[in-house]
Amino acid sequence: MTDAQSHNGRAHLGGRRLRVAVVGLGYWGPNLVRVLHELPDTRVVAVCDLQAELLIRLVPRYPTIRMTTKYEDVLGDDAIDAVAIATPISTHHALAAAALEAGKHVFVEKPLAGSSELALDLIDRAERSGLTLMPGHTFLYSPPVTTSRDLIRSGELGDIFFVSTSRVNLGLHQPDVSVVWDLGPHDFSILRYWMDEMPVRVSAVSRGCIINGTPDVAFINLEFPSGTIAHVEMSWLAPSKLRRTAIVGSRKMVVYDDTSNEPVRIFDSGADLPEPETFGEFRLTYRAGAIVSPRVDATEPLQLELSDFCQAVRNGTQPRSSVEIGLDVVRVIEAVDQSLAEGGAPVPLALPETQAYA
Amino acid sequence: MTDAQSHNGRAHLGGRRLRVAVVGLGYWGPNLVRVLHELPDTRVVAVCDLQAELLIRLVPRYPTIRMTTKYEDVLGDDAIDAVAIATPISTHHALAAAALEAGKHVFVEKPLAGSSELALDLIDRAERSGLTLMPGHTFLYSPPVTTSRDLIRSGELGDIFFVSTSRVNLGLHQPDVSVVWDLGPHDFSILRYWMDEMPVRVSAVSRGCIINGTPDVAFINLEFPSGTIAHVEMSWLAPSKLRRTAIVGSRKMVVYDDTSNEPVRIFDSGADLPEPETFGEFRLTYRAGAIVSPRVDATEPLQLELSDFCQAVRNGTQPRSSVEIGLDVVRVIEAVDQSLAEGGAPVPLALPETQAYA
Amino acid sequence: MTDAQSHNGRAHLGGRRLRVAVVGLGYWGPNLVRVLHELPDTRVVAVCDLQAELLIRLVPRYPTIRMTTKYEDVLGDDAIDAVAIATPISTHHALAAAALEAGKHVFVEKPLAGSSELALDLIDRAERSGLTLMPGHTFLYSPPVTTSRDLIRSGELGDIFFVSTSRVNLGLHQPDVSVVWDLGPHDFSILRYWMDEMPVRVSAVSRGCIINGTPDVAFINLEFPSGTIAHVEMSWLAPSKLRRTAIVGSRKMVVYDDTSNEPVRIFDSGADLPEPETFGEFRLTYRAGAIVSPRVDATEPLQLELSDFCQAVRNGTQPRSSVEIGLDVVRVIEAVDQSLAEGGAPVPLALPETQAYA
Amino acid sequence: MTDAQSHNGRAHLGGRRLRVAVVGLGYWGPNLVRVLHELPDTRVVAVCDLQAELLIRLVPRYPTIRMTTKYEDVLGDDAIDAVAIATPISTHHALAAAALEAGKHVFVEKPLAGSSELALDLIDRAERSGLTLMPGHTFLYSPPVTTSRDLIRSGELGDIFFVSTSRVNLGLHQPDVSVVWDLGPHDFSILRYWMDEMPVRVSAVSRGCIINGTPDVAFINLEFPSGTIAHVEMSWLAPSKLRRTAIVGSRKMVVYDDTSNEPVRIFDSGADLPEPETFGEFRLTYRAGAIVSPRVDATEPLQLELSDFCQAVRNGTQPRSSVEIGLDVVRVIEAVDQSLAEGGAPVPLALPETQAYA
Repeated sequence: MTDAQSHNGRAHLGGRRLRVAVVGLGYWGPNLVRVLHELPDTRVVAVCDLQAELLIRLVPRYPTIRMTTKYEDVLGDDAIDAVAIATPISTHHALAAAALEAGKHVFVEKPLAGSSELALDLIDRAERSGLTLMPGHTFLYSPPVTTSRDLIRSGELGDIFFVSTSRVNLGLHQPDVSVVWDLGPHDFSILRYWMDEMPVRVSAVSRGCIINGTPDVAFINLEFPSGTIAHVEMSWLAPSKLRRTAIVGSRKMVVYDDTSNEPVRIFDSGADLPEPETFGEFRLTYRAGAIVSPRVDATEPLQLELSDFCQAVRNGTQPRSSVEIGLDVVRVIEAVDQSLAEGGAPVPLALPETQAYA
Repeated sequence: MTDAQSHNGRAHLGGRRLRVAVVGLGYWGPNLVRVLHELPDTRVVAVCDLQAELLIRLVPRYPTIRMTTKYEDVLGDDAIDAVAIATPISTHHALAAAALEAGKHVFVEKPLAGSSELALDLIDRAERSGLTLMPGHTFLYSPPVTTSRDLIRSGELGDIFFVSTSRVNLGLHQPDVSVVWDLGPHDFSILRYWMDEMPVRVSAVSRGCIINGTPDVAFINLEFPSGTIAHVEMSWLAPSKLRRTAIVGSRKMVVYDDTSNEPVRIFDSGADLPEPETFGEFRLTYRAGAIVSPRVDATEPLQLELSDFCQAVRNGTQPRSSVEIGLDVVRVIEAVDQSLAEGGAPVPLALPETQAYA
Repeated sequence: MTDAQSHNGRAHLGGRRLRVAVVGLGYWGPNLVRVLHELPDTRVVAVCDLQAELLIRLVPRYPTIRMTTKYEDVLGDDAIDAVAIATPISTHHALAAAALEAGKHVFVEKPLAGSSELALDLIDRAERSGLTLMPGHTFLYSPPVTTSRDLIRSGELGDIFFVSTSRVNLGLHQPDVSVVWDLGPHDFSILRYWMDEMPVRVSAVSRGCIINGTPDVAFINLEFPSGTIAHVEMSWLAPSKLRRTAIVGSRKMVVYDDTSNEPVRIFDSGADLPEPETFGEFRLTYRAGAIVSPRVDATEPLQLELSDFCQAVRNGTQPRSSVEIGLDVVRVIEAVDQSLAEGGAPVPLALPETQAYA
Repeated sequence: MTDAQSHNGRAHLGGRRLRVAVVGLGYWGPNLVRVLHELPDTRVVAVCDLQAELLIRLVPRYPTIRMTTKYEDVLGDDAIDAVAIATPISTHHALAAAALEAGKHVFVEKPLAGSSELALDLIDRAERSGLTLMPGHTFLYSPPVTTSRDLIRSGELGDIFFVSTSRVNLGLHQPDVSVVWDLGPHDFSILRYWMDEMPVRVSAVSRGCIINGTPDVAFINLEFPSGTIAHVEMSWLAPSKLRRTAIVGSRKMVVYDDTSNEPVRIFDSGADLPEPETFGEFRLTYRAGAIVSPRVDATEPLQLELSDFCQAVRNGTQPRSSVEIGLDVVRVIEAVDQSLAEGGAPVPLALPETQAYA
């Protein structure tokens, strides 16, 4: 696609709704259909899945949407502006590349692709074609996550000493990927967004408890250039649901708990070493002040995310869930995999020599 | 001390109370005084601390107990059968060695000594003198810990897939040791007791947030010969107190939470792969059954522990909190320290060629 | 309606789906539409509301359902077997009576009618016409409620000493009725279903905090013939959501908490007076045993309820949420209103001389 | 006692410690001994109980305190300034009256006496003798209670719409009194202190579940002149410990939970009726803002209470836990008993014609 086409592409939209095809109707795809159907400036014009029965299930609810088992039907339809892909990870690159090739803007579920090489290739194709490419890191649109980010970025928490996070419960083993590829995109995109930096070192231990060779529990340590360290526990096998992150800063601390009615709690607590450390008279002061649960907006993150996609397409801007973050997330997962392969050895993360998105 | 002396030592007790001196009256020592004072078969006959004001503070409550700032007074008093040491870690070896030298049985707070070499030396001295040496791993006498051990050892939980534990809250920075030496003895002794095996590999990341060079948060991974993996998070800097351990077995799962009114909860939950794994038809079954909080005895662990010490002295038997466990705990901490020194590299734990306690 | 008609009425259905019209599309009506639309043996053929915009809102989702603002259209349509009414309480009697008159089976949201006199009239009309009339006491189909009932009725809890329940949170003031008419049908139907008896005495205190004269908080005491006493707190004004009921029996106790992941918890706890009470040697034994959270089915209560309606229509049987319970609930609410009018005086509940439903 | 005597009585103290005798060493008495022993300006000089074994139990801990089974020994000892009484309720009046007669200041555990008549008699005796009389309503010194009072009295909560409180758990049946006399003094003193007004009407339902005739559960409603209504649930028979009070104000709401690490939580939530109520366009606004858990001081209430007693004796002032509150609490309990005797009928509380304490 030429620049002109791209220009036209965005201009074409004018005031009308963005026409989207949703590809993949497994666990998550129907949510994309529902939200894109309800948003004021998008319209689902087609859904596509290899399994006809998944399409048929949607008919009573969306009788007017075109249904097809052939991806070519989507690609060949000039009335379709954009494609939203919610298929298994291994297919992300091929489907997204073909859509870009066909001149469609692309929203693709996280992770952006099955390797950083493939992610870079997609980024490259989108740049060259002047089309929008956006990975679906929904948590970056979650109000508790953005509230926490504001607390971090504003300096209210002080220096971030460490972050400890657990994302575990029983269920949803994926057939083809490890728990790290499945749940890692959540935590790694959140950390990347909060810290505005990539880890410099990653180490991990995991186990495939149920299916040998497919990790379903992982303990991952990350070290950041700023000095912050982080621990991420993820598991498909746990006695009860935990979605809890503690952010410990030099001034205040935050607990973000996605299962709680009070998803963000701010603790005015800390320890201070008042004087230049004299070993003879070691004396720390502990503050344990008020705890505040700010009111957190309840908007559905997926709505905010898909609106952002729509704006990005219309204006040619980068969405918050950018390809840069999408690529970085894949690179962290790859580093985790490498550490696992090397028996838990710490793996340094070097920046790629040339950054496609720089 | 000769064998005869040792023999005499235990025989001397006859039916009378064990006469104990408590050394060190900082944070924990007064608890030893209180419990040894109340137990039916022990009697505190002396307390010793370098700081006279700590002694004086105890006078109103224990007006009849002999108080001294000189350890030699304790060592030279033939009426004293045993010494209970609750001093900083760096003094454990010297004080315990001197007490054994003086023919006293020794209870020493965890960790047994500041290095495995020093711990082995103490074990050796105790063996040669025929005296009891016992490290104070109090948690091995905590009813929720023993209830959990029974669940593990009986097979009710099935194979232990993994253990994840958090021991964090704000406060109690130690001036001379890291959080690993301070809190590690709790978790590593519990794991050692539950699993009946030593980890084969340890890796860790930590940070000295408040005092540079003194870790106050640590994320530690352990791998066991049986395949079990464990994560231990410990911190003196955390927004709220957590004392939570999840034990995930192939049949059932347990949450042990020391801050809860229901410290042990058993989840009849799990995932099953019913057939030989066929990739085409991947189908897991999830069980999420009843949750049971068994009634857990409320006896104070310290009472049980000091009674066990008393029995060990009387009968010449090994207490539950044995020198074997005491040494193993120190070896795990040393491995953690080595991993920290090597930037988080996994450190293998080899068994010492000759085990003093074998 | 003659027997023949009635016979015809139910016979007509044969194996085909029950054709239902939903009347009233405010807060709850759309849920009736959704569930009746999805159930295998019902079909929504029409929806009716005075406000056209509420109808229009449903068009995209249910493009094939007939929409009307005129109730007569529903009544006059012979293809409609049954009417499901979800309108303000003050309209229940008129709408239900007209539907029965027109030969339709009737499902009407709780409470059955705005007074026991009107409720009895509806019951009478349904009996005479041989049609099904069912009040929508959805909680009688809630799995935690039925699990609790099984525990009570099986004798596992022993004698029921008392029940204490709170149903409070901020929000949903009703414009035309008090909190007692709004939330009372939930708790009073549950108590009636659990205890299988009507209270003999009711007393209550309330306040209209926001709108003078419209109680938005009420504290209600009930006494049952069996000796059980109950307290029900209900409010539209409370700092946090509570849906908690404690059932205290002579053998065991239950906490039913509708907001919890463990909605039913069984406490093997109690107090025993072992001997014939001698005042000189008063000595109670307390048991505090295990706590069990049984697995509770997660089926949506509304599905079970509307299936039961469908069965009742087909087979001419009484549904679990029977007119008997529906009438009793209205009678308890009336007694509460009377107690409120009399300054909190206890109001006896006599059985009506002739019970229409006996 | 004449003015001169009174003057002398207090003057005698000068700078020296108040010499106190503790009478009654059951459940609570040893706490009085412990705290009075530790306070800087009091000294326990004698303890007294009819049961010698209760005295003997204290010897090891307080070897220097005089012990006696004869109350006359206490009364006749001129070195004793004050008596602290922690005996069964039925003995409060006789013991306190005798102590006042003997010229001793009196601290007596709640309730002040077993009837309002007896309470008035004690107040009268104390006034005439110029001695301090103080009932031990410890909760008035509990930091969460005073924090809540500050929130109420400052107007931060707005008008107090209602208060709902639960004080229940399994255990501690009293042999001689009902749950209302046992637990009522806590809640009624707190309400009296918070509201600064007496209820005008009380109604109650109760049951003696374990011992026939001795209520062990009670549901109590109170109405205040300001319009505030309150519900108090108290029980010795409950599945789990609850110490929870919700205070609902027109501006903010508070939850005071004595079992929580965050005992006071402030909810910036409420409902507003913005315009003069027009029935046609009923539209409420709900606010659900931040929740704040202020830091609450952790001082032991009993220390603060006994210090206040000491100050009252020294300065001749009324303590916070005044005889006025002590009498009012007994009057509320009597009204509850009357309501119970009258089958739950609302009982009006008239002010006594002449108030002894006015």
